[in-house]
Amino acid sequence: MQFTTQQRLDDVLEREFTLGEIPGILWMPASISAPTPLILLGHPGGLRTMYPRLADRARHAVAEGFAAATVELPGSGDRPRLAPVEQARADLRRAINAGRPVDAEIVDRLVLPLVDRAVPEWRALLDAVLSLPDVGGPVGYAGGVIAIGIRLALMEPRIRAALLFAGSFVPRSMVEEARRVTIPLHVLLQWDDEHNDRRAALDLFDAFGSAEKALHANMGGHTGVPPHAGEAGNRFLARHLR
Amino acid sequence: MQFTTQQRLDDVLEREFTLGEIPGILWMPASISAPTPLILLGHPGGLRTMYPRLADRARHAVAEGFAAATVELPGSGDRPRLAPVEQARADLRRAINAGRPVDAEIVDRLVLPLVDRAVPEWRALLDAVLSLPDVGGPVGYAGGVIAIGIRLALMEPRIRAALLFAGSFVPRSMVEEARRVTIPLHVLLQWDDEHNDRRAALDLFDAFGSAEKALHANMGGHTGVPPHAGEAGNRFLARHLR
Repeated sequence: MQFTTQQRLDDVLEREFTLGEIPGILWMPASISAPTPLILLGHPGGLRTMYPRLADRARHAVAEGFAAATVELPGSGDRPRLAPVEQARADLRRAINAGRPVDAEIVDRLVLPLVDRAVPEWRALLDAVLSLPDVGGPVGYAGGVIAIGIRLALMEPRIRAALLFAGSFVPRSMVEEARRVTIPLHVLLQWDDEHNDRRAALDLFDAFGSAEKALHANMGGHTGVPPHAGEAGNRFLARHLR
Repeated sequence: MQFTTQQRLDDVLEREFTLGEIPGILWMPASISAPTPLILLGHPGGLRTMYPRLADRARHAVAEGFAAATVELPGSGDRPRLAPVEQARADLRRAINAGRPVDAEIVDRLVLPLVDRAVPEWRALLDAVLSLPDVGGPVGYAGGVIAIGIRLALMEPRIRAALLFAGSFVPRSMVEEARRVTIPLHVLLQWDDEHNDRRAALDLFDAFGSAEKALHANMGGHTGVPPHAGEAGNRFLARHLR
């Protein structure tokens, strides 16, 4: 893990880094007394585009006493494109623009390779960040891509709770993985999300095996999560990571 | 409004009263500086049986700086039974015990007369409590029977926000009333509620006309609402009544 830049934003220390070839960002409280729990900030890919929203979520996480970290997704941002994923993304856009339902096989081609590549990278990020002196477990995952969150929640024992953004673009085979997830989950659903099938999102929530899971549905579109819903999500993480 | 008993529980002043023939309970902060907003505590009927849960919800409301008030439902507790409602309740039990789906006409016979009788009584309660020196608007409604909450939210302009417990026992004609509700709503749904049809509860949430409505679904049965979900409900009421 090579730190490349460092800047102080009020009480937040923001450091960009590279993990091998993968760019990422780490946010920490500027002054730390005890090792802080860590939140992995999930996103749909494109760190530069996502930066304002990620930095805002990170500020709130740090205000709750957490460290926050994220890495670029495979095939996104400055990373080399993945031809099969690009093809699937184009097929997805074509279906959406034509108002056709999105075939499950397109979702499989788009998401499965992303999950298979991204999950080991997020686990490597965990190894690197948890080796820093000021960061200690437990760890939470917060955000999309929900399929990456499902696989991490299932495979990575250091992750104790997950705040997931409901999405319907989940490969068929991963619904079975969702049934085996047991950590506490807090799922945010935008009731009128133009990018998601509400019914599929509700069925996925129902499938999760966790004894503690909550669904918070709010009005509005994909990016319209109200501030109080984000605060409720942070309270959920604080409840399980402190 | 005749007060019959008065007791101090820590910082809460609890007074039982009768409103005409109708028994009720009022909870207030023991010491008041400014007129407090009011929460009407809805319940399924039977004040004596419901008292522990109502008193607990009232304590939390008073801790948020609200007054809380409730009255016995028509045909419940010590009030004279309503023969047609009793008949419908017996038919409902028979259907549930036999594992049969509950006919919509049974729900109409059970709930409509209750709503028609209860709503004017809750509005009379509002008149009485808001005439007290220490209580001022705005007013929120919190709890079941959801059909009573829907009718009050639609007809009573003094009610500015409602925290509703999702239920599927809503008369067919009242789904249309739900579409005309416009005040902010916070709906609690117990995902495994043995007394409710989840699909019907989700459809009802979708039907509400309110621009701000949130659905909070948690695991567990009818009475298993987790404490943090109740706290989120109180934060919703505080956001809209302060």
